[in-house]
Amino acid sequence: MGPRPDLRRVLEPLGPVVVFAASNFPFAFSVAGGDTASALAAGCPVVVKAHSGHPRLSAATAEVVHHALRSAGAPEGLFDVVFGTEAGRAAIVDPRVKAGAFTGSIEAGRALFDLATGRPEPIPFFGELGSVNPVFVTEAAAERRGPEIVSEFVGSFTLGAGQFCTKPGILLVPASAKLVDRLPGTVPGNALTLLNDRIRTSYASAVRELRDTAGVRVVVSGDHAATDPSPTVLCTTSAELLGDPEALIREVFGPAALVVEYTQESELLDVARLIDGQLTASIQGEDDDAIAAELIRLLAAKAGRVLWNQWPTGVSVTYAQQHGGPYPATTAPGTTSVGTEAISRFLRPVAYQGVPQHLLPPALRDGNPLGIPQRAS
Amino acid sequence: MGPRPDLRRVLEPLGPVVVFAASNFPFAFSVAGGDTASALAAGCPVVVKAHSGHPRLSAATAEVVHHALRSAGAPEGLFDVVFGTEAGRAAIVDPRVKAGAFTGSIEAGRALFDLATGRPEPIPFFGELGSVNPVFVTEAAAERRGPEIVSEFVGSFTLGAGQFCTKPGILLVPASAKLVDRLPGTVPGNALTLLNDRIRTSYASAVRELRDTAGVRVVVSGDHAATDPSPTVLCTTSAELLGDPEALIREVFGPAALVVEYTQESELLDVARLIDGQLTASIQGEDDDAIAAELIRLLAAKAGRVLWNQWPTGVSVTYAQQHGGPYPATTAPGTTSVGTEAISRFLRPVAYQGVPQHLLPPALRDGNPLGIPQRAS
Repeated sequence: MGPRPDLRRVLEPLGPVVVFAASNFPFAFSVAGGDTASALAAGCPVVVKAHSGHPRLSAATAEVVHHALRSAGAPEGLFDVVFGTEAGRAAIVDPRVKAGAFTGSIEAGRALFDLATGRPEPIPFFGELGSVNPVFVTEAAAERRGPEIVSEFVGSFTLGAGQFCTKPGILLVPASAKLVDRLPGTVPGNALTLLNDRIRTSYASAVRELRDTAGVRVVVSGDHAATDPSPTVLCTTSAELLGDPEALIREVFGPAALVVEYTQESELLDVARLIDGQLTASIQGEDDDAIAAELIRLLAAKAGRVLWNQWPTGVSVTYAQQHGGPYPATTAPGTTSVGTEAISRFLRPVAYQGVPQHLLPPALRDGNPLGIPQRAS
Repeated sequence: MGPRPDLRRVLEPLGPVVVFAASNFPFAFSVAGGDTASALAAGCPVVVKAHSGHPRLSAATAEVVHHALRSAGAPEGLFDVVFGTEAGRAAIVDPRVKAGAFTGSIEAGRALFDLATGRPEPIPFFGELGSVNPVFVTEAAAERRGPEIVSEFVGSFTLGAGQFCTKPGILLVPASAKLVDRLPGTVPGNALTLLNDRIRTSYASAVRELRDTAGVRVVVSGDHAATDPSPTVLCTTSAELLGDPEALIREVFGPAALVVEYTQESELLDVARLIDGQLTASIQGEDDDAIAAELIRLLAAKAGRVLWNQWPTGVSVTYAQQHGGPYPATTAPGTTSVGTEAISRFLRPVAYQGVPQHLLPPALRDGNPLGIPQRAS
């Protein structure tokens, strides 16, 4: 190579981004949510495809964003909102668009991913799709803290009427602890408000399908007669789960959960090996559990976040947050959609070689006029 | 969110990687090249699909790698080599494989990208495909340093017989400077060795096609009668180029280049706006060129590396290197395949929440037993 050239690298915006708004966080992950914020922060123009579940809120939020951007002196056309499936489809295949971000179902997310990667110029598509967020309860934990675990589990899977991406949909417990018997007395019987009619319909049919699957019995039968359902808890065994994972390990968006009873603690490892990519995987264990180290190792290979004696429904917006995971949790396993690192999805590095000071981006000039962190070697 | 949980994030290996070896760097970017090195460094097992251009060298290199890994105490099965198109195709769709890396043609790279993204579980595919690496010569530079620029250009596009990914395939010059007239006396007439028969055949047909395109004239006619060709230089105008970019802006792998004469310096901006994604884009300019700032800005949006008064064929392996770029330069514009940052393609973040010290990966434990850089907040 000879002597090294003067080479300076900086992150620059990827280009216009289409954000497909989520249904379940009309404020935090919709028009002005995390994807929009991180794309704008990266310097990318944003087109939001509004979610059909809250069109008027979307329009109102867009007005607020427009006003804020104008007040801050942002260039015209930096941000806009489009409505309808067709508009979203047109946006993701538009040659001017350079990335997509999405939060929603596996079906819709995969369809958009296929459009984004099938373009003449394929573009990165950061989809956060589906996750059942399994919780693994060890024998010792069930024995020492069974009632507490059941109560916290119910609180977590019914939080926000079970409409969190990180809702714990599966709880694996030792059959011997008989924790299932505690559920009817713990699960609240009142109706929980779902966000819109489409979610209500999908939820009712997903619960019905899972309930009617061979090997599943009803522990708490949610009331579906009313507009909004009360929680449902179903139960099966780890043998059934391992025998037909496709039918039994499925995200049900809403206040339902599947309790899986195991007979040997080692079946927790079998399930950990079997599951698809997850946003989160949690363990309720005791510090001296012999199975813990191996279980954590297996779950870290499957999930973006591994929790110990905590519940996944809180997603702290911090440096260390990882809201992502192998497919189908996301379509981009190296990325996160929550936390400070979310911005890096919308940046691309550019190296400048031998460029004179006055022609370099300010971030790369000698003397560091922007006062930003730099690494020199 | 309430009080923040104890959340610690670390990068972990993505999983088994298939590396499709390049033809043009049988050592530096083949069996034991940059992709293999960065995937292994990330902790990922590697299956190399050997390039058909150097099968015996590939097998011999694999032996060296096997021996080195065994000597270092690496686990069995961490590395292997497969041969043949079918084996490569089978590897990229194998459910155990979690990422692909590739250096080669747009056609082959796109086919593999489509396989990788079309899987039931799509996986990241880091393809480095095609780039014409245009060089923009300003009027002032042509006037002050014309002969020097021509001579350096010839040295760069014929280096390694023009088989570099970063070969400058297009040189834009002011027609008024008559630099084209200098080329016949500067381009060497001797045969340059191409790496294999397939490259020879493709090269001959690509040169023929470009030469026969409307608006193209021959400046230096390479000798194709011999097994190995001598360099070819073709010429056209920026008006022709802007009129039919698809026909005229094409990578020719081997010692050929297209000189493009412009009449107005502002046509450099038109070409910069028009070109597809590039690994590199270079400017030969003078510090006080009025066009420089805008030209650099436009080129930074198209290329992974922007050079000023330097030639792109040297690719320094450093922290700041960016060997990547928007499609079709690569299939993953946020990544580089050369330089220290190449490792990050094969890593995924995992966050550990509330996990006891003895169950955390050593990198995340209090007291930092591995002594690695950490950020705490």
